[in-house]
Amino acid sequence: MGKKVVITGVPGVGKTTVINQTISELASEGVEYQNVNFGSCMFDVASSQGLVTSRDDIRRLEQATQRELQRNAAQFIAKSDGNIIIDTHCTVKTPKGYLAGLPEWVLKELMPDIVVLVETDEDQILMRRMADDTRVRDAEGYRALCEHQQFNRAMAASYAMLTGCTVKVVVNADNLLNNSVAELKTILR
Amino acid sequence: MGKKVVITGVPGVGKTTVINQTISELASEGVEYQNVNFGSCMFDVASSQGLVTSRDDIRRLEQATQRELQRNAAQFIAKSDGNIIIDTHCTVKTPKGYLAGLPEWVLKELMPDIVVLVETDEDQILMRRMADDTRVRDAEGYRALCEHQQFNRAMAASYAMLTGCTVKVVVNADNLLNNSVAELKTILR
Amino acid sequence: MGKKVVITGVPGVGKTTVINQTISELASEGVEYQNVNFGSCMFDVASSQGLVTSRDDIRRLEQATQRELQRNAAQFIAKSDGNIIIDTHCTVKTPKGYLAGLPEWVLKELMPDIVVLVETDEDQILMRRMADDTRVRDAEGYRALCEHQQFNRAMAASYAMLTGCTVKVVVNADNLLNNSVAELKTILR
Repeated sequence: MGKKVVITGVPGVGKTTVINQTISELASEGVEYQNVNFGSCMFDVASSQGLVTSRDDIRRLEQATQRELQRNAAQFIAKSDGNIIIDTHCTVKTPKGYLAGLPEWVLKELMPDIVVLVETDEDQILMRRMADDTRVRDAEGYRALCEHQQFNRAMAASYAMLTGCTVKVVVNADNLLNNSVAELKTILR
Repeated sequence: MGKKVVITGVPGVGKTTVINQTISELASEGVEYQNVNFGSCMFDVASSQGLVTSRDDIRRLEQATQRELQRNAAQFIAKSDGNIIIDTHCTVKTPKGYLAGLPEWVLKELMPDIVVLVETDEDQILMRRMADDTRVRDAEGYRALCEHQQFNRAMAASYAMLTGCTVKVVVNADNLLNNSVAELKTILR
Repeated sequence: MGKKVVITGVPGVGKTTVINQTISELASEGVEYQNVNFGSCMFDVASSQGLVTSRDDIRRLEQATQRELQRNAAQFIAKSDGNIIIDTHCTVKTPKGYLAGLPEWVLKELMPDIVVLVETDEDQILMRRMADDTRVRDAEGYRALCEHQQFNRAMAASYAMLTGCTVKVVVNADNLLNNSVAELKTILR
């Protein structure tokens, strides 16, 4: 069995960039990682069961059905061979509050080896969001971002308690992408 | 089934005021919420079983009995129809440390939809406590209050991991009660 | 059955000193506590099963075997008579991130009464580490120490949710060892 590494980070922290560069550099060393987006995996499971035709349909399903899809997606990933990066959120910020990205029924199936929190200074995240006009995001201030990153850490601690995974903070600071990638490669090798 | 919303906050944050005004304003819109105090509900269960005659008797029961009462109270609330606000503490500060207001055996029965943390700046809480001479409370300083609110957040994150509930911070700042009520109404509607 | 009290703290916080002086002072009052190091207990279990000959061998065992040893050590302690202090870490800092000192399968067996976090100002911990040349420790800066103590709190909150234990912060500040011991004695009596 390969490693199952969950990689998380708030929108704008540069998670996708870090993941892609890490996978590419590791591949050139002969270390293969498959990149799985948890939401896409849920959609694939839901479509194969004929439950949805678009990704937006998922949130319109009943809560019990959504949870069963989450469980099924986790089972699918857990059974897959090889090293896998699971790209998801540690907490999802919704109008009704923070939601666990990996609730108990997902964790018990997935049993990840490592949960990575890609973080950086909240002010840097704000600046990156303002500079990125390709995406429309909910406006969020400095303090809200601090709160979100704090909840991510607390949530990750509870994941570690339940599964025995490690929780690793990888800082993705401005102009230092290579450092983040180097640190991530060290724990993924 | 209605919504089950747990509302928590440290003593002095104004939780009761926020709850009462929110319930009253929602009722005038035709949205009904029943307000259940978790401790009172435990007492009702305990008296109906002939275990206690006053609320203070509960803490003198054996730990296993107390936990069974907590579970029974949670089951009772879970089976109730309609929308329910459960008024309780996220963590209870005791001489031996912080205790989970909703331990695992309560959460698994209650399965709340939302856990609300009513918070505000610790200095405001201190000033409110000092101004309130109707209650005798244990003296607690600024740093102790920061610690308490921090543990509440960490605890709430673990509740979200176990149950899939959301965790919503509602700030109840000085002179801005209407804002807190408006925010709470939005998530309870 | 006696009390099961888990005592934790980052390296350099003075946990061992606090534990030893507390046990000694309590003994002189006639309150007996046995001091059990969780790692040593795992090693005893592993040697009695013929799995290892030195403590370092444990980390070379397969993960499933290590987890079974953790569970067995917790069962052994849970069955022991009398009051027990379990000396361990709330989180263990490893190259791959923070690991729960007491994961779910340990907690469910041990069901501790109290988890104590021995803490102090991170700057004091740094100074103590620099002054202690009897041990080789990984160099860790001020911010890393803040992060570690923060994860310890978040982790402890999840322990409280799962088991119903209390979480008590005991501050072990410079020149005030007697205060820490007095506070710890109060909760252990």
